[in-house]
Amino acid sequence: MSLIPLLKPRSIAIIGASTNMKRVGGIPMELLVRAGFEKLYPVNPKNTEVQGRTAYPDIESVPEPVDLVLLAIGAEDVLAYLERCHAIGIKAAIVFAAGYAETNEAEGVKRQEELRAFAWRTGMRVAGPNCMGNANFSDGIFTTFGTSFQPGDPAGRTALLTQSGNMCATVYRMARRSGVAFSHVINTGNEADVDFADYLTFLAEDPDTDAALCYIEELREGEAFLKAAAAFRATGKLLAVYKVGASEKGAEAARSHTAALAGDSAAYDAAFAASGVARAAELAGLADLAYLHCFGAKIAGSACAILSVSGAAGAILADALSLNGGGVPTLPEAVQASLRASIPAFGMVANPVDLTGNLVNSNDFLFEAVNLTLSPSDIDVLIVYLPGYFLESAMDQLERAAARLNKLVIVIDTFALGSRERLAAAGIAYFDDFDRAARAICAYGAWKQESSATPSRITPQANWPAFPSGEPALSETAAKQALAAFGVPVVHDALVRNAADARIAAERIGYPLVAKLVSPDVAHKTEHGLIRLGVKNAEAAAEAFETMTAKARSMPGVRIEGVTLEPMLSGGVEILAGVTRDPVFGWMLTVGLGGVWTELMKDVSHKLLPVDAAGAEAMLRGLKGFKLLDGYRGAPKADVAAAARAIAALGEAVLAGGNKLREVEINPLLVMPEGRGAVAVDALVLLNTLIEKRTEEAA
Amino acid sequence: MSLIPLLKPRSIAIIGASTNMKRVGGIPMELLVRAGFEKLYPVNPKNTEVQGRTAYPDIESVPEPVDLVLLAIGAEDVLAYLERCHAIGIKAAIVFAAGYAETNEAEGVKRQEELRAFAWRTGMRVAGPNCMGNANFSDGIFTTFGTSFQPGDPAGRTALLTQSGNMCATVYRMARRSGVAFSHVINTGNEADVDFADYLTFLAEDPDTDAALCYIEELREGEAFLKAAAAFRATGKLLAVYKVGASEKGAEAARSHTAALAGDSAAYDAAFAASGVARAAELAGLADLAYLHCFGAKIAGSACAILSVSGAAGAILADALSLNGGGVPTLPEAVQASLRASIPAFGMVANPVDLTGNLVNSNDFLFEAVNLTLSPSDIDVLIVYLPGYFLESAMDQLERAAARLNKLVIVIDTFALGSRERLAAAGIAYFDDFDRAARAICAYGAWKQESSATPSRITPQANWPAFPSGEPALSETAAKQALAAFGVPVVHDALVRNAADARIAAERIGYPLVAKLVSPDVAHKTEHGLIRLGVKNAEAAAEAFETMTAKARSMPGVRIEGVTLEPMLSGGVEILAGVTRDPVFGWMLTVGLGGVWTELMKDVSHKLLPVDAAGAEAMLRGLKGFKLLDGYRGAPKADVAAAARAIAALGEAVLAGGNKLREVEINPLLVMPEGRGAVAVDALVLLNTLIEKRTEEAA
Repeated sequence: MSLIPLLKPRSIAIIGASTNMKRVGGIPMELLVRAGFEKLYPVNPKNTEVQGRTAYPDIESVPEPVDLVLLAIGAEDVLAYLERCHAIGIKAAIVFAAGYAETNEAEGVKRQEELRAFAWRTGMRVAGPNCMGNANFSDGIFTTFGTSFQPGDPAGRTALLTQSGNMCATVYRMARRSGVAFSHVINTGNEADVDFADYLTFLAEDPDTDAALCYIEELREGEAFLKAAAAFRATGKLLAVYKVGASEKGAEAARSHTAALAGDSAAYDAAFAASGVARAAELAGLADLAYLHCFGAKIAGSACAILSVSGAAGAILADALSLNGGGVPTLPEAVQASLRASIPAFGMVANPVDLTGNLVNSNDFLFEAVNLTLSPSDIDVLIVYLPGYFLESAMDQLERAAARLNKLVIVIDTFALGSRERLAAAGIAYFDDFDRAARAICAYGAWKQESSATPSRITPQANWPAFPSGEPALSETAAKQALAAFGVPVVHDALVRNAADARIAAERIGYPLVAKLVSPDVAHKTEHGLIRLGVKNAEAAAEAFETMTAKARSMPGVRIEGVTLEPMLSGGVEILAGVTRDPVFGWMLTVGLGGVWTELMKDVSHKLLPVDAAGAEAMLRGLKGFKLLDGYRGAPKADVAAAARAIAALGEAVLAGGNKLREVEINPLLVMPEGRGAVAVDALVLLNTLIEKRTEEAA
Repeated sequence: MSLIPLLKPRSIAIIGASTNMKRVGGIPMELLVRAGFEKLYPVNPKNTEVQGRTAYPDIESVPEPVDLVLLAIGAEDVLAYLERCHAIGIKAAIVFAAGYAETNEAEGVKRQEELRAFAWRTGMRVAGPNCMGNANFSDGIFTTFGTSFQPGDPAGRTALLTQSGNMCATVYRMARRSGVAFSHVINTGNEADVDFADYLTFLAEDPDTDAALCYIEELREGEAFLKAAAAFRATGKLLAVYKVGASEKGAEAARSHTAALAGDSAAYDAAFAASGVARAAELAGLADLAYLHCFGAKIAGSACAILSVSGAAGAILADALSLNGGGVPTLPEAVQASLRASIPAFGMVANPVDLTGNLVNSNDFLFEAVNLTLSPSDIDVLIVYLPGYFLESAMDQLERAAARLNKLVIVIDTFALGSRERLAAAGIAYFDDFDRAARAICAYGAWKQESSATPSRITPQANWPAFPSGEPALSETAAKQALAAFGVPVVHDALVRNAADARIAAERIGYPLVAKLVSPDVAHKTEHGLIRLGVKNAEAAAEAFETMTAKARSMPGVRIEGVTLEPMLSGGVEILAGVTRDPVFGWMLTVGLGGVWTELMKDVSHKLLPVDAAGAEAMLRGLKGFKLLDGYRGAPKADVAAAARAIAALGEAVLAGGNKLREVEINPLLVMPEGRGAVAVDALVLLNTLIEKRTEEAA
């Protein structure tokens, strides 16, 4: 149901409204009165008036319809009061009280489950519990006991959405210091009913909001988050995210703090990448992204020209931009020549451009230099280093230049003497620190480019055969056959059930070949001697059959379906591709070179499904060890395009299998030299035998 | 010669002293007058008085002895005037003028060479040219035309030493905002005579200085820098360094700006690591390191306890500390139990400790919690997150706790409302940003621990044989023999000169063995078919001899010294160790696993010589691929200690060879299973045939 009554209420009742302006029931009262909110109904059995407004003994006595009720009462009284509110038709509530699941105690957990059940049963939208509430600056509505948000603060078009009350106040203050103003500030609390994705969906549609800054500890509904993020992307609104838990210790602390489901950190990275959000590497970066978004129309990417009155500053900025993934393209010869005409020999013109300290004060050259350096089509943004008095004397020229530009000029003044307001009025951004500026423009520019990409959609073109009931896995043969139906090239094998057939099949396939025992009960066959490589003739094939089946018969509980024979390929590069299910975000594809590359160097790439062939190829090309596929040490280049198609087909197969699958892996996928394709030598399909059980539990 | 006349002059003359307080000749005059500097002699032929002081028409007319002369005149007049100053016994000068080597033009370069020649001939210490000058706050002496340094600024015990005037002013202002005060502020300029290491040596001995903050673009004298850094280390003074050029683009810009010798970025890292300096990853980090050094006596390392009123802040801090190399040790059970007694179930007690928002206001528990969390011996520092009003109400308890602690408490208030001064007075550090605080304490703590380590010294215990004159390299046999003298275990080989001898030697060595052609003229023998592996009997050894010598005879200009036979070892892990000469810092040891590990993953470790066995083992253990030596996938653990001894012996050999060597490499060093040693299978010794020529050029 709509969050309009919660976030844009026309009338509000406060249960436990207080005359004490330092209490949870007094602060929102005071804020709303000061904001001039009219339809405000304090409920307090002991007073007939609270902070100058008529008070009512109970919610039933309030004479007008109420959109939203704030509960500033203890957790033990909340549910009963909510039932009464529901009875008179109230559609939304904010529960400030703590004492729910965050206590990690049975009573609190049960209380939260009851609250959620109430909300789901009645349809009332309940925010919190254990939340600080919200501030809606667009409409002047303050339903929070936080004291950082004041009715006098300007309204803006940035929303702030956090899973921590303190970080809500922190980011708000940081962003205000840069002049960013807000539409909504929301602290989600325990998210018993209204959750992070619900708020995000509201903000995606909110006409007063252009950008959302998110502080995230753990997401509960990955799919809903991805959908809301897609809505942001579709409308060009900025979705900026800071996620805590990049380190083991941090993740552990966040889990302990929220008691939420632990999504894998790599899955969050993959999800954020897939949904085109802007990532802040530090909390302060959220504020900086919001600040840059105020100039967003003039930023197309993060390729920067640097104009400096100090060679040192130019070098520092080139470092900071490069290390944060931004570009510092060399300026075209013609531009360099024009600059050179007015810059002394010891200044630099290639980018960074060092005007040297001599020029800025004396003539109009800065105006010209700004226009020159921003003229190349591969330059997105100009960063001008003008500390203190340099900036002062250059202001007129800067303003004049910026007025006619459709690209952004960012001024950096490390003396911190410039007027942020005057520059903002001229459409010029201002930072007093090199690295903060570089981090911000790189993250923002990357988002701007990413957000214009079209997300891939994949509709599976085939079906899985019926899965064997109760089995934890498919046999290798069945797994390869099933994947082949989706377009994964596989090594064709022959399944034989006696030594005589093994001889015949071997002669047909040719040599050398590989013999493998087929059983649903053994995952790691090499370790049990159930794979024989380099079988060279019919006699050896028969012998392998006998030996391996004898070995398998000696292993308890191992069913034997036969032995497969397949050609033994050589000359390719082995890679692996697997799909696992993240508890929050669902299917995640992992691609790597296998062996030490995967195990020791962690040289793998992750993406959420769907992934098309172009996406799979980008994953391969992003591996540090990609050169092994690209003609390393004189080897032929591998058929990367074919490998990418095979990986995309694997992803398609997993999407088609859906909930019935637990994990699917091709290992190795042998990538042959260019033009000769790639082929799955072995495949593992694990089935989700627990689906029915889980579905019951969730209900 | 001493820098005392330059940095602590008793009397100063200003050539070109100006009445205009905005000019290069007017600013230092104004600053010195305002600072009440007495023995100040403006030289100006047009005025009898400048800014209230008696002026003289020329330096010869000054009636008192002059320690330091400031030249505020054009570059073309500088040298002649310096000669006059020298003639009357002046010992130091600062040349403000630009127009020297920084112009990248022949005239300027020549002018700088002449200036240097003058200084070296006369012994006068000449600062600059193209510098902003210095400010000595300890003695109230301002010999700069920079306007950021004011006589009213407090004196402190931190020095600032930069290769850029702008960064000098920037870091000064940044640090002043944290309350850091300075002894000396020095901008080195072109360093024609007095160079970076000279200033650093002065500061290491300066009784007014406890710490130096350095902005570095390029060092010219690596050895002198290392020596000065060692003096800092010996006295416990902080040497904090920010080096520009971490990225390609940044390094390129810095080079273009300074036209200095391009030291390798890895060599700078190795040099800074070897000399125990504190590294700032960002310019702002320099100011933060200086700030923490004010509390330095209370900081032993970077293992932090975190006390927070917000679970979110605890998690963010745990992330930031972990990602910057700091520690967040789990608190002992007893401490956790004591905390738990006063912290609700939903708070955390392991570290981070989440007091929750309820407690701080109500009782003395914060006092107790501070003492509890700092009590474990493995905790160096306590970080307390107390935003805004939490800090306000906790101040008394914090002050009371800090008064009796010999470990540092750092307060973080992201609302930026706290009083840095009041906290500093109580010995408590203050930050308003999580990540800046984490970067600072991690870098500072790492320095503190590193600076207490004893640098290794190695005196070579053997000698190289006479080097063949004019040869670019030793033969493999000679190389291995020479290294063996220093204790590098090598594969012993037999050198044979005909097929019959090959048969005999092979029978003695045993099989399988390796046969290699010996020639000083072929570096990559495998590629030319001049190595034969797996020789299995005497017949094959003779055949290998014939074939390879025939092949070598067919190659023009290849001298043949014979063929070596050596046992073919197996079962070990191959690594490589090499020493190359960096133009700035000298011998740098590189250790890696070779092959794709070195080439694709860049998984190597660098250290400047000397490196002892413990240092070499640390290098090996620091490799990402170290697990390959540590019993990967069930393989036996490799004899890492023996490998480390062999690598240290290689380093010792290079130090003994000195200038006569160009590069020495062992590749592979075969590391056998534990207890079975490591052995150099092949070695390369390249000789410095150009020494004589270079020595001539330098003269």
